[in-house]
Amino acid sequence: DAPLALIAGPCQLESLEHARMLAEKIAAAAEAARTPWVFKGSFDKANRSSLSGKRGIGMEAGLSILSQIGTEFGVPVLTDIHTAEQCATVAQAVDILQIPAFLSRQTDLLLAAGETGAAINVKKGQFLAPWDMANVADKIASTGNERLLLCERGASFGYNMLVSDMRALPIMAETGYPVLFDATHSVQLPGGQGTSSGGQRQYVPTLARAAVAVGCAAVFIETHEDPDNAPSDGPNMVPVDQLGALLTKLRAIDEVAKGA
Amino acid sequence: DAPLALIAGPCQLESLEHARMLAEKIAAAAEAARTPWVFKGSFDKANRSSLSGKRGIGMEAGLSILSQIGTEFGVPVLTDIHTAEQCATVAQAVDILQIPAFLSRQTDLLLAAGETGAAINVKKGQFLAPWDMANVADKIASTGNERLLLCERGASFGYNMLVSDMRALPIMAETGYPVLFDATHSVQLPGGQGTSSGGQRQYVPTLARAAVAVGCAAVFIETHEDPDNAPSDGPNMVPVDQLGALLTKLRAIDEVAKGA
Amino acid sequence: DAPLALIAGPCQLESLEHARMLAEKIAAAAEAARTPWVFKGSFDKANRSSLSGKRGIGMEAGLSILSQIGTEFGVPVLTDIHTAEQCATVAQAVDILQIPAFLSRQTDLLLAAGETGAAINVKKGQFLAPWDMANVADKIASTGNERLLLCERGASFGYNMLVSDMRALPIMAETGYPVLFDATHSVQLPGGQGTSSGGQRQYVPTLARAAVAVGCAAVFIETHEDPDNAPSDGPNMVPVDQLGALLTKLRAIDEVAKGA
Amino acid sequence: DAPLALIAGPCQLESLEHARMLAEKIAAAAEAARTPWVFKGSFDKANRSSLSGKRGIGMEAGLSILSQIGTEFGVPVLTDIHTAEQCATVAQAVDILQIPAFLSRQTDLLLAAGETGAAINVKKGQFLAPWDMANVADKIASTGNERLLLCERGASFGYNMLVSDMRALPIMAETGYPVLFDATHSVQLPGGQGTSSGGQRQYVPTLARAAVAVGCAAVFIETHEDPDNAPSDGPNMVPVDQLGALLTKLRAIDEVAKGA
Repeated sequence: DAPLALIAGPCQLESLEHARMLAEKIAAAAEAARTPWVFKGSFDKANRSSLSGKRGIGMEAGLSILSQIGTEFGVPVLTDIHTAEQCATVAQAVDILQIPAFLSRQTDLLLAAGETGAAINVKKGQFLAPWDMANVADKIASTGNERLLLCERGASFGYNMLVSDMRALPIMAETGYPVLFDATHSVQLPGGQGTSSGGQRQYVPTLARAAVAVGCAAVFIETHEDPDNAPSDGPNMVPVDQLGALLTKLRAIDEVAKGA
Repeated sequence: DAPLALIAGPCQLESLEHARMLAEKIAAAAEAARTPWVFKGSFDKANRSSLSGKRGIGMEAGLSILSQIGTEFGVPVLTDIHTAEQCATVAQAVDILQIPAFLSRQTDLLLAAGETGAAINVKKGQFLAPWDMANVADKIASTGNERLLLCERGASFGYNMLVSDMRALPIMAETGYPVLFDATHSVQLPGGQGTSSGGQRQYVPTLARAAVAVGCAAVFIETHEDPDNAPSDGPNMVPVDQLGALLTKLRAIDEVAKGA
Repeated sequence: DAPLALIAGPCQLESLEHARMLAEKIAAAAEAARTPWVFKGSFDKANRSSLSGKRGIGMEAGLSILSQIGTEFGVPVLTDIHTAEQCATVAQAVDILQIPAFLSRQTDLLLAAGETGAAINVKKGQFLAPWDMANVADKIASTGNERLLLCERGASFGYNMLVSDMRALPIMAETGYPVLFDATHSVQLPGGQGTSSGGQRQYVPTLARAAVAVGCAAVFIETHEDPDNAPSDGPNMVPVDQLGALLTKLRAIDEVAKGA
Repeated sequence: DAPLALIAGPCQLESLEHARMLAEKIAAAAEAARTPWVFKGSFDKANRSSLSGKRGIGMEAGLSILSQIGTEFGVPVLTDIHTAEQCATVAQAVDILQIPAFLSRQTDLLLAAGETGAAINVKKGQFLAPWDMANVADKIASTGNERLLLCERGASFGYNMLVSDMRALPIMAETGYPVLFDATHSVQLPGGQGTSSGGQRQYVPTLARAAVAVGCAAVFIETHEDPDNAPSDGPNMVPVDQLGALLTKLRAIDEVAKGA
């Protein structure tokens, strides 16, 4: 088993300077923990709880920032896509295309993403069972692209609440693809603040530790220098100055979990 | 309160002849029960469980059939759309655009649908609470289009199972928009047959009766002359020759439910 | 199918005068709606959310009240039991022993209740599937007592929330025993107020209408002249002066639902 | 934080020889992993899915075995109790009284257990939220007995399925009492085999690893030399010859999790 990797970055891209500032802090945390990492940032939030939520800086500006960060830091970059039409353009600028959870059953989007040849990270829908993801993976693999990652991010549990079933990690791993754990969106309280989603930032370390102990390939953690004032997902982002300590602990658990 | 209306038709459009045959039987059932009705049919199934599921006859052929049925039978017609780009074209051919449940949070789709001025039926996401639908409705209403219908179709309940919470009907009705109950997809067992969804056709009358007694504005029932050989949703479609008796019972309950 | 019956009364017995006052109002409502009824009252609340909740007036005083009400009003009376030891004594004073939902799998309690020969109303555990109740019924029936009623009262749905699955009614009816719907505890928000359970009284009519339209044998409704000041279950009890209108509506739905 | 402890033993006590054989193997595993341990065994299964399930060897025989094992191996012993009357007698023979999950809200049982002065392990009801356990603990603590353990064992998740929410561990730890994780019953499929519960033994290590990484005080693992032929809980018991490797891994994770 390969050692744990980290996917980290802000929920929304804000500016090149902001992305660079966060990337420097993430890089330092990752280096200290000897952990390969991927920079993540979104150029558009296409499914906000309500219209009052900020959408993002747009595709052109976002891809430019991502390319620049990838080059400057020598790391792969990841962003999420929302329509089949975006896939080809986005794949020219980033290394990993991410399929949002709500769209994880949209066949045309999965096929268009697959056809780019880029690596694809598919978030498991909150409405899907872990074993349902084999069909999702098969859709993409039908394009000949098997550079797939499957990502757990919580299952619907009553109203405005998700629960993370750690059994989902080995079940999805039976597909043969690497399995990620998104510790940020798993602690979301969807719609839980009326016109936006709430979150339980304090349980990101809890769930990340659990997932790493089970043996996941990578953790996905959104981070920000001031989460409470971030344009989205503030309630569940980890302050970037806490990322280092968290990652060091996760890597230590990872070594034991994957050790003989 | 207006009397109960019916939205009925096949899951997938198959041919003009097939649609006409079903429409004749639905019309007879609706007339016998003095129930206004809408013809429903899909031209594309964009989110099948797996690639092996049939996609549909395509937009051009589908819209042609729907227009023809609407004209011949003098009824409104409804179909579901999957991308923002489809909205304007589809709205020229049908009376009601339907937003699929998985896409009920996709802002661009909701806005594009709203901007057509057509009536919009939004299926509530399996991952949403009933009160979350107020934000969804607000997105569409921001276009100036308030011809909205909100539709309950079950909430995620563990894996591969939905549950219909009848409280959702009055909660969504607090928005002021008419509330529908989709008795067909509420009995779906999502992903429950490995590469396709299962269903519990036998509970369509159970849930439809319950929803009508609560006072919903309309019921949505997919129907087919031979569900077990239908290209999709066979396990949860009602045989069309049983529609008349079901509708008569529902209308009788509706009269009592909405009576003084 | 027999016409709908009503089981009604306060959550906790308070005094003979109080029970008589409520029984008079219930009797009037039931007579107006031509509905057979059963008086319900608890002498002990053995599983309050916290110690600060009132327990009740005790077995001796409670059974005396119940006997008296049964005699005065000529109706069957029902109470819940909590230990095997209580069964024989309680069965001498009441017509129907009720098994609480949390205790619906406790074999010794089920057998002791069955052995009294009294009618038994078993609440379905919030943690059970509807089909699991066949095993529960079999435990009691093994005593030779088949005077059983099975009662739906909501299933756990995330934290501090229940959901009522109307499919549970026909599924439990497959056992051949009459199926009841408890409209009071189905709208409970268990533990939802910190040291006591909350409730959504406003949805009692919603769920009761739904259950009656599906064809249940009886509805269970707790009622009080001043629910907000009742010693328990206030948030979900129906004010007794609203019972008549509700019951009249339910009976009208019942006639249609069970009609040819 | 104290190092991880283990609670292990068969679901049902079968005989002194059987208990001794298992205790020897558990002791060897625990010694190799330098882990303090407690022997667990049940004398009565009071809430089997159906009457066809074996009940157990009875209280007198069971307590005699438990006393003997405790003395021979120099370890604390634990058993579950089902009525208030049993508490005093059982507390004379064992060190830890366990409250079954279904009974976790039964006030009289909690108080009677507390009054013995023995340590009490309370299983969290499948129908409770983690924060609801503070009220449960307060009931017992009202007796002056604060030797409490709180134990997560899964929450109801749809029908015939549990899910383990790892957030429950830190939430329950806010009470100040040690928190355990029952890795055996968390993988139960309640009622999932018609007249008995199924289970997913293969996920015991998954969930146990996760819970230990989060920092729980102890894991509870039922074990047997031949689970498929055990009188109860066979589908979710770990074969005793696999216990050593599992425990060694858990202890390694525990050291990292609780390290600076």
